[in-house]
Amino acid sequence: MIKLMLPDGSERMFEGVKTGKELLAGLEPELKKEVICLQVDGELADLGAQLPAGATVGLVRQADPAALEVLRHSTSHIMAQAVKRLFPEAKLAIGPAIENGFYYDFDLPRPLTPEDLTAIEAEMKKIVKEDYPFTREMVKKEEALARLKAAGEIYKEELVAELEDEAVSFYQQGEFVDLCRGPHLPSTRYAKAFKLTSIAGAYWRGDSSRPMLQRIYGTAFFSREELENYFKLLEEAKKRDHRKLGRELDLFSIDEQIGAGLILWHPKGGRVRRVIEDFWREEHVKNGYELVYTPHLGRSVLWETSGHLGFYQENMYGGMEVEGQEYRIKPMNCPFHIAIYQSRSRSYRELPFRWAELGTVYRYERSGVLHGLLRVRGFTQDDAHIFCRPDQMPEEIDRVLAFCLKMLKAFGFNEFKLYLATRPEKSVGAEERWAAATEALRAAIEKTGLPYEVDEGGGAFYGPKIDLKIKDALGREWQCSTIQFDFNEPERFDLTYKGPDGQDHQPYMIHRALLGSLERFFGILVENYEGAFPLWLAPVQAIVLPVLPENLEYADEIYAWLRAHGIRAEVDSRNEKIGYRIREAQMQKIPYMLVVGSKEAETGQVAVRARREGDLGTWSREELLARLQEEIAAKR
Amino acid sequence: MIKLMLPDGSERMFEGVKTGKELLAGLEPELKKEVICLQVDGELADLGAQLPAGATVGLVRQADPAALEVLRHSTSHIMAQAVKRLFPEAKLAIGPAIENGFYYDFDLPRPLTPEDLTAIEAEMKKIVKEDYPFTREMVKKEEALARLKAAGEIYKEELVAELEDEAVSFYQQGEFVDLCRGPHLPSTRYAKAFKLTSIAGAYWRGDSSRPMLQRIYGTAFFSREELENYFKLLEEAKKRDHRKLGRELDLFSIDEQIGAGLILWHPKGGRVRRVIEDFWREEHVKNGYELVYTPHLGRSVLWETSGHLGFYQENMYGGMEVEGQEYRIKPMNCPFHIAIYQSRSRSYRELPFRWAELGTVYRYERSGVLHGLLRVRGFTQDDAHIFCRPDQMPEEIDRVLAFCLKMLKAFGFNEFKLYLATRPEKSVGAEERWAAATEALRAAIEKTGLPYEVDEGGGAFYGPKIDLKIKDALGREWQCSTIQFDFNEPERFDLTYKGPDGQDHQPYMIHRALLGSLERFFGILVENYEGAFPLWLAPVQAIVLPVLPENLEYADEIYAWLRAHGIRAEVDSRNEKIGYRIREAQMQKIPYMLVVGSKEAETGQVAVRARREGDLGTWSREELLARLQEEIAAKR
Repeated sequence: MIKLMLPDGSERMFEGVKTGKELLAGLEPELKKEVICLQVDGELADLGAQLPAGATVGLVRQADPAALEVLRHSTSHIMAQAVKRLFPEAKLAIGPAIENGFYYDFDLPRPLTPEDLTAIEAEMKKIVKEDYPFTREMVKKEEALARLKAAGEIYKEELVAELEDEAVSFYQQGEFVDLCRGPHLPSTRYAKAFKLTSIAGAYWRGDSSRPMLQRIYGTAFFSREELENYFKLLEEAKKRDHRKLGRELDLFSIDEQIGAGLILWHPKGGRVRRVIEDFWREEHVKNGYELVYTPHLGRSVLWETSGHLGFYQENMYGGMEVEGQEYRIKPMNCPFHIAIYQSRSRSYRELPFRWAELGTVYRYERSGVLHGLLRVRGFTQDDAHIFCRPDQMPEEIDRVLAFCLKMLKAFGFNEFKLYLATRPEKSVGAEERWAAATEALRAAIEKTGLPYEVDEGGGAFYGPKIDLKIKDALGREWQCSTIQFDFNEPERFDLTYKGPDGQDHQPYMIHRALLGSLERFFGILVENYEGAFPLWLAPVQAIVLPVLPENLEYADEIYAWLRAHGIRAEVDSRNEKIGYRIREAQMQKIPYMLVVGSKEAETGQVAVRARREGDLGTWSREELLARLQEEIAAKR
Repeated sequence: MIKLMLPDGSERMFEGVKTGKELLAGLEPELKKEVICLQVDGELADLGAQLPAGATVGLVRQADPAALEVLRHSTSHIMAQAVKRLFPEAKLAIGPAIENGFYYDFDLPRPLTPEDLTAIEAEMKKIVKEDYPFTREMVKKEEALARLKAAGEIYKEELVAELEDEAVSFYQQGEFVDLCRGPHLPSTRYAKAFKLTSIAGAYWRGDSSRPMLQRIYGTAFFSREELENYFKLLEEAKKRDHRKLGRELDLFSIDEQIGAGLILWHPKGGRVRRVIEDFWREEHVKNGYELVYTPHLGRSVLWETSGHLGFYQENMYGGMEVEGQEYRIKPMNCPFHIAIYQSRSRSYRELPFRWAELGTVYRYERSGVLHGLLRVRGFTQDDAHIFCRPDQMPEEIDRVLAFCLKMLKAFGFNEFKLYLATRPEKSVGAEERWAAATEALRAAIEKTGLPYEVDEGGGAFYGPKIDLKIKDALGREWQCSTIQFDFNEPERFDLTYKGPDGQDHQPYMIHRALLGSLERFFGILVENYEGAFPLWLAPVQAIVLPVLPENLEYADEIYAWLRAHGIRAEVDSRNEKIGYRIREAQMQKIPYMLVVGSKEAETGQVAVRARREGDLGTWSREELLARLQEEIAAKR
């Protein structure tokens, strides 16, 4: 008996069926057309795979995320086939699917040119048209080695020689055979939409003492349209790259002499950060949080107690010695908030505590993975810890999740996806606490009505959590917020409060960050808004442009008036044509340009240009201020 | 010829005069009475001292700060004389004047008791009455060693044996002789007002392998009244000790497990800090500053370039290694602001830059000198750097000094003293820059009309500066603000801007901190206000006290209403008598106590008690809010 799980959630039982193909034979043509491989007892497999008796089989359709990886992997084989046709001497190395595409490494007789890529693409199209099925063959290791030797495939031979398996699989499409684990598409005709994107050198096995190979990158989708959208998105993302905009708008920089992954917030970035921080503090106080401030380092003994020197050491900066004691720069704020908790005894009457801190932490990341503001070594978490009684816990979770959504919406994000991560095998903490906490998280999510996924066993060893992803203007997902129980630290630090029974009880401890970190969130904002911040966040909200030098006095008057009303205004009185200065202000993405000439000076008005809407006509300064204030208050 | 400088600034020339006594003979009795020693060519000397021909002589009167040190030193001799009378076996170690008093270390046959101190004091009073003159005798080193050996003064003998001088001086009053450099009072009768304060063990020469001696501490003044005031002040200071108040009011703590000198700001301290920071940021933006944010660590190469690893290393925390590069936690923010400056080229048109940061820095201090919030290892400087052109520099200095005074006044400080420190012998930077900068500092000070002193040669090697001291409610002086030129870093980092001539020019760079550090300033505020913060700073501005449990609902309504209007309110609904809760609120130094009973709930009013004024009667909530808002705005 084989159990087939259908996409609608229903099940169908089959008897006497041996392969995927036979299983599919009985399906509706509409569905069958979409299926490109199977999931057999949780593992991906070709359509042609043998089905073990009693197997549970799922269908992987083109729309499923796993399908895209199979497509890209198969497309790398098609590319290798094309390369072999054009360069019969080519030796194959490896050709995996990767994030956003695939690559294949080749040992070739000469360096590839862009024209070669065009020729390879053309040949790939032929292969797709020729519609070769991908077929799998299991071969004993010796036999495989012999075949690869005969074919001169020295790289593949090396790979097989190192395997401990007794047999390996080969895949064939048309005349092309490749050592490969699979699975693959049913046939080459599924690879309808692909593009080769670049060539790069790559050492065999990443080892600079081994031969330098040529790597061809490409990507593939199931439809032409998706492929085109992908390149449009890439183009769009490039325009929005926060590193490029950060330079152009003078928001921040990273200085090699200071260190990789450490951010210098320039005055204009600092203005945005101040608005974010002020808003964040105000909202936190409104929502019942207290603000605390703690040092950036602590004795190593603190990190021994917390356990971080055990399970987190590789992400921590090295020790510093002071008077025979070792200190570490902090990778997290929690032990410091715990120290405040423990500065005196606590009563059940005082709980809950909600202690928030814009706490700057330092974590080691390999320099290779650092990326602008998005992946850094020093960052300011918008951190808070909640210490509460069991009876308060579910409400605290509701409140923090609602607060989180409110904060993110204020910054223009309205699409969310939640991930609930539950207890992993290796974990600490009492079973009933895990259960209660997980239930509270789930209930809070369900109250929001937002889509969510459960990552079973995906929690940290010390507690279950919610991760929240936002979708930006390009539809890209970013994880910012996290709400995380901790059953480890209260135990290790022996956190207690006196209950009404006079006994010591352990509080629940919840870590949470809503924006994640100011650096990363700022990077996301820059990309989301393409640097064109809404008025409330804009570093320069309005720029006053005197038409002629004689209008400078009036321009300064308008400027001073706006500044006195809290508007971040500037004056551009450079000796340049007004059109040039408007263009520059537009490029600097300044929301309002206030052109003042002699006419405006006479009537006491301003000619208003908005970044998005263009010329808005001539306004009184009160009208202007009213609009600005209203727009700021609305956070539009 | 001897030149005598009189206190009124006039000079008098004397001929044929050989000693101080002869010189004084010609003075008015009123003045003569006040003089206790001399300054001969800048060095302190006894009244009986020989005057070298051509000497310039100043008078040290009782009111001069140097006189107090002489008095205290002489009083320590008087104490030693008394101890010798009571304990003839006593051996003398050392007996200097120290800050706020003096001590003497003795080797005694038995531990001293408080009763001994009383007896010693009584004996000292006799000696004072006996009015012995202090006389000085120069003795050859051998002779001195022989005398000390004969007297059994083994500690003094050890000290003399180590001296390289050919002769040493002894001082005698009555039967008592002591090895001493002097100078001393004319006679014992000047020591009119003294008190022995405590006994402590002290190793000979601070070395725990040497004998433990008994140290007697005392203090002395020229008048009974000053002595009494001193003890009153001590008492008052003890009540105001910020460490005691910090604990009682739950403002902050220091945790041994985190590390000495590292401050945890508790929620209530955090509330005050937030108010200070918000105000500070707002004022800085109003005053043309931009806010920047920089990391807390940087590569060691940065500190090599800045020179700190040369001249400041002993105050820096040790290095941390990351991927083969050494990092240091920052002891100052300046190199980071310089890095922002250098992130792109700068034009004369853009200057001045005023970049401010609440930058937390870490500096190593010996654990022995750490003191609550006042002397710490980690602190947040209210730092800023000004980069400007030479033609802008004087105005920038005027502005920063005026801004500084305005900030300090807002926190209730109205008495200031300024110190101008000029070029030391060892220094870097062009002569004309030192001259222009020093002149600008002096001119800015003089415009304020405030008292100031010039510390000639007291500047840092890298530039002249103004230090500003405030006087607190007890009349104690605290140095907070500093305005400091830097001619070192612009040179080392090669800071330039493009001038109108198209050439590179070096900007002036000015470091400045107005409050100094948030930690220290907070400590001063706590002591200044005795923890009873003015309304705008108070962690809890108003506490609502329901008379009976049934008034809780109305209390919560008042509380919510105040919170919605931005008042930091709390409710104390504990099951305790109203009188008890009022007393507790008073002890917590909460400015307003709002008592609400059934009558208030009916009329919608509140019974208002002010911390200072007591019962203010029953008010409408609008009246209350108006008063609170007015008082907050006025920063009273």
